[in-house]
Amino acid sequence: MSEVHLARRARLRERCAAAGSEAVLVSRPANVRYLTGRAVPGAVLLLGADGRDTLLSPPGAVPGAEPPGATGGLHCLALSGHVWGRAADPAAAAAELAAEAGAGVLAVEEHDLTVARHRALAAAAPRLRLADLDRAVEQQRLVKDAEELAALRIAAEITDHALGELLESILVGRTERHLALELERRLTDHGAEGPAFPTCVATGGNSGLAGHRPTDRRVAEGDFLTVCLGAVYRGYRCRIGRTFVVGPAPADWQVELYELVFAAQRAGREALVPGAEYRRVDRAARHRLAAAGYGETLEPYTGRGVGLEIGEDPQLSPAAMGKLDACVPVTVEPGVHLPGRGGVRIDDTLVVRPQADGGPELLTITTKELLAL
Amino acid sequence: MSEVHLARRARLRERCAAAGSEAVLVSRPANVRYLTGRAVPGAVLLLGADGRDTLLSPPGAVPGAEPPGATGGLHCLALSGHVWGRAADPAAAAAELAAEAGAGVLAVEEHDLTVARHRALAAAAPRLRLADLDRAVEQQRLVKDAEELAALRIAAEITDHALGELLESILVGRTERHLALELERRLTDHGAEGPAFPTCVATGGNSGLAGHRPTDRRVAEGDFLTVCLGAVYRGYRCRIGRTFVVGPAPADWQVELYELVFAAQRAGREALVPGAEYRRVDRAARHRLAAAGYGETLEPYTGRGVGLEIGEDPQLSPAAMGKLDACVPVTVEPGVHLPGRGGVRIDDTLVVRPQADGGPELLTITTKELLAL
Repeated sequence: MSEVHLARRARLRERCAAAGSEAVLVSRPANVRYLTGRAVPGAVLLLGADGRDTLLSPPGAVPGAEPPGATGGLHCLALSGHVWGRAADPAAAAAELAAEAGAGVLAVEEHDLTVARHRALAAAAPRLRLADLDRAVEQQRLVKDAEELAALRIAAEITDHALGELLESILVGRTERHLALELERRLTDHGAEGPAFPTCVATGGNSGLAGHRPTDRRVAEGDFLTVCLGAVYRGYRCRIGRTFVVGPAPADWQVELYELVFAAQRAGREALVPGAEYRRVDRAARHRLAAAGYGETLEPYTGRGVGLEIGEDPQLSPAAMGKLDACVPVTVEPGVHLPGRGGVRIDDTLVVRPQADGGPELLTITTKELLAL
Repeated sequence: MSEVHLARRARLRERCAAAGSEAVLVSRPANVRYLTGRAVPGAVLLLGADGRDTLLSPPGAVPGAEPPGATGGLHCLALSGHVWGRAADPAAAAAELAAEAGAGVLAVEEHDLTVARHRALAAAAPRLRLADLDRAVEQQRLVKDAEELAALRIAAEITDHALGELLESILVGRTERHLALELERRLTDHGAEGPAFPTCVATGGNSGLAGHRPTDRRVAEGDFLTVCLGAVYRGYRCRIGRTFVVGPAPADWQVELYELVFAAQRAGREALVPGAEYRRVDRAARHRLAAAGYGETLEPYTGRGVGLEIGEDPQLSPAAMGKLDACVPVTVEPGVHLPGRGGVRIDDTLVVRPQADGGPELLTITTKELLAL
């Protein structure tokens, strides 16, 4: 893998050199992982003016699988607790290092560093001019390579398995909280490193809520049951969301609402073609729900990018700028919630592909017909 | 509860008014929760110059238990996705609101806001002068009231139960990952809202590592087994850590190492008296381990505050400034890890009390004698 990361860092160096930065400091954890393959809590990556790449870890950080020292062109430096004590900030240490290595301009991630950290960093290397790296690494992360897509496919496979097993078990009488825990255990049983985000199980009046946190409410006959989960595999995260009806048969309002959300979600999926504007994809799903009178209740986006993070770029929202490329994995996740009654969410993870290659690749293949459990 | 939060906001207002700020913007989630009792993802709290307290939620945020509108002197405002779209930042919206309400100076949390958010906020209200609230709310959170301590006691009780049940089960042959999942399920079974932090199960060569993430390594005879977990109850988080030996009897080196860490941990606990300097408490535990030659391998702190966060203020570290007060809950968690061989961690959560009241109150009461499982 380390050649992959070496190449990613080389690309970032070129881009920043062209923008006039002699050194680059990457602090956002997912960006550090993307460029190094390491997931060390609190670590930052410095691309130095001397051509040297250094991963600086805070005191007490677990150095991770690979041993410290130069591996794959990456020099690892774990700060000692005695030197740095409580004030330890690898970003400040990196700024000093950058200055010592002769950099005049250091690009930093202003969307990640707090005002206080940025100030401490400036104080640590007063002669250094600080520039904004902005979302350069996030931009580089948009289009996934074959290895990344392979990891996402496995994450989706694990997720479908865990959900499928749940559907075979008895649900009535069990609490949202326990169903969520069981799903997370099943994800791990099937090889996930963990849940990609807090597993959401929402029943009855809670169903259809996006970020619902499982409660002690028990699944009852006649409920809508919304389940959103995802696995992490090799750091890559996917998302699936499904809504079911508990009991012999859905009520008419449930069938109507489900068909509406399903039509909106399908429209969103069908809009996923290379070159499509983010806002157009959002509109494809959104306008159907708005036309039905739910415009005000909708979330600001109907889909998001996935990869090392859930909800990374792009955002599929009315105000989003930009166009989809091939090999960009995104979710399509519209939902409607009627306060007091419940609602419907249907979330899929797909990879954008040209029509010539068969169009968008659906990673989360669990059925989307309205099941009565 | 809302009177409690009203009083907390009043205290913060006074403190900031004295410092010359007419309005206050609180963005750090745990601080927002402390001052409002609400846990709304991405929400920020504005204490306005007009004496009005407003909780601003991002589009699509789950408003939480209480209904929006004025409750307990708190006005709730959920931003619409249509108005704010992707650029939605409640902090920027709050700055506009503060300016409209006639504030000239707005104190913000520079240790929480990113440089980019701070800039957007300044742009949203150009005439507003931005000051630094610094860690004023964290300071206010240091000393816990009776209700907070009651929640911590219940959290600790739940944690002890979950750990106790695990010790009665067969451990040999099971993976770190599955033991961690079982512990988290038991926490929930006993009424926890969830784990206070990612449950750590470390066996064999992994034992004694602080932030170890559970792997597929299986527990084997002769292993050291380190388990660190904690429950969340009403938002309050505690921590316990224990190290056991798997098999009939520990080896000599295991007994020696355990006795060393235990002596250090006891010294740390005994140093917890009102008025004790943070660094002295750290030193009490640290110098024993340093004297035994483990100084370089230690973490930067041997204990931390707990409450709405794990690892909040104070930090018990060599460089920490400040003194303990009564009713401050902290962990004492020294550990030693020998690369390749494993190690020992012993973590407790205690509440600082005057000697007259019997000294520090131990919340996590699971035995600390070296058990052979």
